[in-house]
Amino acid sequence: MEYYSNQISRLIEELSRLPGIGAKSAQRLAFHLIHMPKEQVEKLAETMVSARNHVRYCKECCTLTDDELCPICRNEQRDHRTIMVVETPRDLAAYEKTGKYEGVYHVLHGAISPMLGIGPGDIRLKELMVRLEGDVDEVIIATNSTLEGETTAMYISKLIKPTGIKVSRIASGVPVGGDLEYIDEVTLLRALEGRTEL
Amino acid sequence: MEYYSNQISRLIEELSRLPGIGAKSAQRLAFHLIHMPKEQVEKLAETMVSARNHVRYCKECCTLTDDELCPICRNEQRDHRTIMVVETPRDLAAYEKTGKYEGVYHVLHGAISPMLGIGPGDIRLKELMVRLEGDVDEVIIATNSTLEGETTAMYISKLIKPTGIKVSRIASGVPVGGDLEYIDEVTLLRALEGRTEL
Repeated sequence: MEYYSNQISRLIEELSRLPGIGAKSAQRLAFHLIHMPKEQVEKLAETMVSARNHVRYCKECCTLTDDELCPICRNEQRDHRTIMVVETPRDLAAYEKTGKYEGVYHVLHGAISPMLGIGPGDIRLKELMVRLEGDVDEVIIATNSTLEGETTAMYISKLIKPTGIKVSRIASGVPVGGDLEYIDEVTLLRALEGRTEL
Repeated sequence: MEYYSNQISRLIEELSRLPGIGAKSAQRLAFHLIHMPKEQVEKLAETMVSARNHVRYCKECCTLTDDELCPICRNEQRDHRTIMVVETPRDLAAYEKTGKYEGVYHVLHGAISPMLGIGPGDIRLKELMVRLEGDVDEVIIATNSTLEGETTAMYISKLIKPTGIKVSRIASGVPVGGDLEYIDEVTLLRALEGRTEL
């Protein structure tokens, strides 16, 4: 990129390595950063480094957090006998945004994928089993509705069944507000199978 | 955002202030950064701050660069008697990518916009006029094909006409309402070839 100076080229190059940021967005971001007040750029840079260096896994649920325990695991008001199993901290956040779930979580940090060579030992499953030795009433499996998510859900349910703890799976079906005509056949069939009496 | 820890929330918040980065992308970026090797995050942070602090305007063409003169203005092989006037460094880069333009540039850093209160004094026009006191054969106006770009082109051509220097405007191969930076090289070249004298 002879047409940009060294510093700008390097910045564009590094930005374009981030996920979801293509060549054009990287350029736009770079010029935005160059025009931002010095202090703001320094603050953003510092926040990035600090987050990278201080964030760790919650000792209980394995989500990412600053302290030994995450705010949810620390919260005495939550129902610690109900554990929702999710793939990522972002999935956890998605359910938290509903504001209606009172239990706690367990973050697997991935899903079983024979295709990608990710086995049960590569996700935070051992940590979940250790938690189940305590007082737990129900495990709600909320992995994604993908091949990997379903595989993981089946695997976990088989693992937990012998312990006698209730295991459930979130329903899959037509999303609220969804138009039947635009929804794929598999989802439509899944919704039909999972129909509930009115 | 109680569902994310302080450090993560702050990072997401700061990232989502960048242009073109919405709430979802900011989350994805934040988690990507947290999982990146420590050294890479530090390098990215440093590159951002360094670019912000070291990049300045080229003494000649006003583009953004690390040195007193940008690589193009320093290049003796280029035709310094032909100046292409563009709005932004990204527009300059767009023409450089064609690899066919041999002249030099002048970056206005904006366009005249009565609507936004941007007058001729707010863009790098004075600097262009100073350059025209030297040996210049032609000024090619390559501002965007928008209302502001056209206004700026007309304004500049009227300003230059009395000096006797040839003034041209890139052809309307560029679609009306289009932004130079998003246009393919072939169209950009077509526009360059079809330029007409003003």
